[in-house]
Amino acid sequence: MEGSRSLRVVIVGGVALGAGAAAKVRRMDESANIVLIEKGPHVSFANCGLPYYLGGVIADRNDLLLHTPASLRARFNIDVRTRQEVIGIDRTRKVVQVRDLPTGNMYEEPYDKLVLALGAKPLLPPIPGLQLPGVFTVRNVPDVDAIKQWIDLYDAKRVAVIGAGFIGIEIVENLRDLGLSVTLIEKSTQILPPFDEEMTTRVYDELERMGVATILGDGVAAFHGEDRAQTVVLESGKEVAADLFILGLGVRPDVQIAKEAGLELGVAGAVKVNDYLQTSDPDIYSGGDMAEVKYLVDGKMRWIALAGSANKQARIIGMNVCGSRVKFRGSLGTSIVKFGSVTIGMTGMSEKATKATGIPYFVSYVTAGHHASYYPGAHNLTIKLVVEESTGRIIGGQVVGREGVDKRVDVIATAIFGRMTVEDLADLDLAYAPPFSAAKDPVIMAGMAAEHLYDGTVEALNELPKDLAKWQIVDVRRPDEVAAGMIAGAINIPLDELRQRLSELDSKKPILLYCQGGQRSYFAYQMLKGQGFSRVYNLSGGYIVQKLREQQNGNPSLVTAG
Amino acid sequence: MEGSRSLRVVIVGGVALGAGAAAKVRRMDESANIVLIEKGPHVSFANCGLPYYLGGVIADRNDLLLHTPASLRARFNIDVRTRQEVIGIDRTRKVVQVRDLPTGNMYEEPYDKLVLALGAKPLLPPIPGLQLPGVFTVRNVPDVDAIKQWIDLYDAKRVAVIGAGFIGIEIVENLRDLGLSVTLIEKSTQILPPFDEEMTTRVYDELERMGVATILGDGVAAFHGEDRAQTVVLESGKEVAADLFILGLGVRPDVQIAKEAGLELGVAGAVKVNDYLQTSDPDIYSGGDMAEVKYLVDGKMRWIALAGSANKQARIIGMNVCGSRVKFRGSLGTSIVKFGSVTIGMTGMSEKATKATGIPYFVSYVTAGHHASYYPGAHNLTIKLVVEESTGRIIGGQVVGREGVDKRVDVIATAIFGRMTVEDLADLDLAYAPPFSAAKDPVIMAGMAAEHLYDGTVEALNELPKDLAKWQIVDVRRPDEVAAGMIAGAINIPLDELRQRLSELDSKKPILLYCQGGQRSYFAYQMLKGQGFSRVYNLSGGYIVQKLREQQNGNPSLVTAG
Repeated sequence: MEGSRSLRVVIVGGVALGAGAAAKVRRMDESANIVLIEKGPHVSFANCGLPYYLGGVIADRNDLLLHTPASLRARFNIDVRTRQEVIGIDRTRKVVQVRDLPTGNMYEEPYDKLVLALGAKPLLPPIPGLQLPGVFTVRNVPDVDAIKQWIDLYDAKRVAVIGAGFIGIEIVENLRDLGLSVTLIEKSTQILPPFDEEMTTRVYDELERMGVATILGDGVAAFHGEDRAQTVVLESGKEVAADLFILGLGVRPDVQIAKEAGLELGVAGAVKVNDYLQTSDPDIYSGGDMAEVKYLVDGKMRWIALAGSANKQARIIGMNVCGSRVKFRGSLGTSIVKFGSVTIGMTGMSEKATKATGIPYFVSYVTAGHHASYYPGAHNLTIKLVVEESTGRIIGGQVVGREGVDKRVDVIATAIFGRMTVEDLADLDLAYAPPFSAAKDPVIMAGMAAEHLYDGTVEALNELPKDLAKWQIVDVRRPDEVAAGMIAGAINIPLDELRQRLSELDSKKPILLYCQGGQRSYFAYQMLKGQGFSRVYNLSGGYIVQKLREQQNGNPSLVTAG
Repeated sequence: MEGSRSLRVVIVGGVALGAGAAAKVRRMDESANIVLIEKGPHVSFANCGLPYYLGGVIADRNDLLLHTPASLRARFNIDVRTRQEVIGIDRTRKVVQVRDLPTGNMYEEPYDKLVLALGAKPLLPPIPGLQLPGVFTVRNVPDVDAIKQWIDLYDAKRVAVIGAGFIGIEIVENLRDLGLSVTLIEKSTQILPPFDEEMTTRVYDELERMGVATILGDGVAAFHGEDRAQTVVLESGKEVAADLFILGLGVRPDVQIAKEAGLELGVAGAVKVNDYLQTSDPDIYSGGDMAEVKYLVDGKMRWIALAGSANKQARIIGMNVCGSRVKFRGSLGTSIVKFGSVTIGMTGMSEKATKATGIPYFVSYVTAGHHASYYPGAHNLTIKLVVEESTGRIIGGQVVGREGVDKRVDVIATAIFGRMTVEDLADLDLAYAPPFSAAKDPVIMAGMAAEHLYDGTVEALNELPKDLAKWQIVDVRRPDEVAAGMIAGAINIPLDELRQRLSELDSKKPILLYCQGGQRSYFAYQMLKGQGFSRVYNLSGGYIVQKLREQQNGNPSLVTAG
C-alpha cells in the first residue's frame, strides 16, 4: 500500500513561488496530494502591481488576484488553505504544525516533500514611532487597501515615502498621480541604490520636474505624533510633516520557520539552497525572496529578491519535487522601473558592485537615439556597460532613457546570459526599421565603443583629472552645443575644424577630448593619434555623462553659459 | 619614396557601406588618400527613411541626408565626387575608369585598395509598359521627389503598389496616410513573403481594416496608358486603374562592374566575398546589398540585402583595407516592419526556409500580452520559434503584435547569435515591471513551450488532422470564448471542469486539445496524460494560430458562432 500511496506535497506560502510550484506539481503528477498553506487571505496576487493599484492605474482590485483558492482548486486540484499559518516544521516526523488563524486551532500536516515559499518581510528598523498609525508598508493587497482607506479617511494631501528603491519610486509616481504632495527620503546619497549614481540622475531630475521633494543622504530617526504619525524626524534633525508615511526600506528574507527547523542559512541570512533548489534538508525546497540564488555573472550565491526568478524557480521546484533533477541556472538581477517619462533598467553588475568584488573591469558609455534620428520622436538613451577587463565579457549593463530602455536591457541581459563579449555585442544582428531602431542600434554602438576600449584603440578617462591645469581639454562640439555649457578650462575646436587647427593644440600637455556623447571625440582621438599626438584621451560618455555625474552635487567643473 | 606613399583607397558608391567605409579608413589612417565616387547626387542618405519621407512623416528632406560631400570632406578629409560613374576596373593596372556625368569626360583613378559599394538595383522584369511615365521605383531621394511631384501634378488619388515586401508595405502605409486610395498587388499568395504565412495574417487584416485593397497571387502582366500609365493588367486578366504605380518588386545586386572586371560571383548572383569581405581579388573589397553574406544560422553564404549588415561591414572593410584582419561574423536577416497598429518582425529562418533546407525542425507558438495582463493596455503578441530538432537550438523567430514586437525579435536574435537553445531562452533573466513585461516574458514562455516539445513533455500537431472524424477534438476554453468561434466538430469542456468530466471523453480516439493560445490545453494535456489517456496531442498555438492559418483562405474548418 505504502509504495503506491500518493505523493504528499505541502507548500508553505502562495504568490509566485508557492502557487506556481503547486500548479507545476499537479502537471507533473495527477495523483499527488498537494496542500498549499497561506497565512494571508490571497493565495496568488500580483505584488508587482501593488503600486499601480494604489495609484488607480489598475482600477479593479480583482485584476491583482491572479488565482483564488477556488480557481486553484478547480484547475489544479490543490487543497488551498488561506488564513492558516505554519508555525513549525518537524523534519524527523516530516510534518508541519499549522495554526488556523480564524479559530486558533492547531493541527499537523504530513509531507513527503515540503516547499517553503514564505518570501520576504519589510525591513523595519527599530525606529521610535514606527508603530504609530499612518505609517505603512506595501507588501500585499490589504496593505494597499489600508493606505487607500487612510487617504480617504484623513483626506491626506501630503505623503512622505521613505526609501528610494524600485518600489519607493513606483509608489512616489502613483501617489503623485493621485494628486498628493510627495516627499521622498533616502538614507543613501543617491536614489535607486542598485544603480551607479550617474545613471540615476535623469530619474532624479524627473522627480524634481514633477514636483517631488527628494531628500538624499538622510535616514529616519523617529516618527512623531499623538494618535497618529504626523512628522518624521530625520537623522540630520530635519523634520518632514505629512498625513501619511510609507516605508520602502527594502525587505529581508522571511526565514524564521526555516531557521527554527534547523535549515542552513546562506548569503544575507537567506535560506541556503543547491542548484536543484533543495535546502540543507533534501526533502525541503525553497526559492523566491526567502532563499539565496546563484548569480549568473560570477556563479556565487547572492540574495536577489525579484519576481522573475521566483516564477522560474516555481517550475523547477515543481519538477524536482516529482523526481526530476533540473537545475535553476540563476539570476542576473535584471530589473527596471519607470518614473514619469523616464525609464531606467539594469542587468548584471553595476560598476560599484564590480569594484567591490575586485574583478578588474572597465566601463563604457554610449548615448544615442532610441530609434533612427531622422524619424520623428527619437529620444536619447544612455547605455553603460561594465566589462571584464581580461576577457571583454560583458558583466553588467544599465540603460536610462525615455523609450526603448526595456529592449536594450533585455538584449544586454541575453548577451550576459550567453557570456558574450563586447565584440559579440557589436556584431549582433538586431531589427532595424526607422520607427524602432537605427541601422546601428544603441546596443551595437555600446558594443563597438566598449570594443575600442578593450582592444586599446582608444584610451579613456571616466572622470575629469584632478590636476586640470596640467591638461589640455578640447571640446569638439559645435559652438551652438558649447553655448549651453562646457567643462571649465576647455577650449572649443569643432571636430570638423580640428584638422585645420592642430597648431592650436599644446603638444606638451596630455589632451582630453570630449563631445556630447563620445562619438565625435572618438573621431577626434583617432585623428590626433594619426597626426602624431601621443598623449590623447577620450572622456568616457562625453559631456552628457559628465553632467549626469555632477548634477546631484553642484556642478563643480561645468560652466553653464548662455 | 614609394614605401612611404599614402595608401590610395577608392570607394565606389556611397550610402551606408561606402560612406561608412570611407570614414573608417580615415580613422584608421590619417594619411590615406580616400576617393569616394558616387553616381548619384547624394553620397549618404537614409534609404530606409524613404517611405516615411514620401508620406511626410519625415517632413524635412534634409533629415534624410546624413552626410553631404562637404561634411564628409570637412570631417574625414575624403575626396567625394558625386555625379561621377565608375564604368570599369582595370585590375592589372589597379585603376578605375570614371565618367564625370555632367560633362561626359572620362578619367582614370588609381587605387591600392578598392571598395565596391554599389548596392542593389530595383528588380525590373520585362513587363510591357514598365517605362511609361507614372511607374516609379523607390531607391533614392530623387525617386521620392519625383513621386511627390507626380502626385501634385496629377492630383493623384489612386495608387497601385506592386509587391508586398517590407518596402511595399511601408509605402502603402505612408501613401494611405497621405489620403490616397491604395491597391496592393502581390504575386505570391501571401504578403511579406519572407515570413511564414500565418504570421502575416494580422498585417493582412490591418490592411483590410485600413481600407487597402490587397490582391494576392497575381503578378503584373503589363501597364497600359497613353502618355502615362493608367492601368496595370494582372496575369489573371484583372485590371487595376490608378494615377500612380509604385514597384516594390525587390532588388538584385548591382554587379555589372564587378562582373566585367572578372570578379567571382557567389550566391544569387551577388559578389563572392570571404570572411574578410575581400572579393576574389584580394585588393578589392565588397559588402552591403551587392555582395553575398554569411548566414549565421548555418554558416552558408546567402544574399540578404539589409542595412544592419552594411553598416557593420563598412567598419570591417575600413579596418581591413588598412591592414587589419577582422572577420565579418554574418547576418541573421533580422528585420521588422510596422503597418498601422501592427508590427511584425523576424530573425533567422522561417519555417518554410527551414523546410527547404531539409534540417529536421519543429515549431512552437506562444501568444501572450506584451506586458503584465493586469496592467492596463496589454496587447497580445504571437511568437513563433523554429527549433533544430536534434539539438534544441533556436534557428528562427517571428513575432507579430501591436507593442513590444521589436524587443522580442531582438532578444531572440541575440539568443540565436549566441547559439542558444530553447532551454536557454526559458532561463533568461529579462526585465520585469508591469508597464514593460510579465514575470514570465513572452519570450521566456516561448522558450518553455518549445522546451516541452523538445524534451517530449508534450506532443503537438501544427495543423488540424485531415481525418477529423477519427479524432476527438476538445476545446478547453471558457464558454464565452467558444461563443466567438470554435473548430468544427470540437466539443467544449472548459479546463476547470475537465477533471470532473473525463467520462465524456472517448478513450478509443486520439484526443486533440486546444485553447486560445496553447497554455490551458497544455495543462489539459498534462492532466489527461496523468489520468492515463495515452493518445493526446496539443494543437500548437491554439485557436489563435489556427485562425491566423485559415483566415486568408476562407476558414474551412472554423465555425463562427454568435
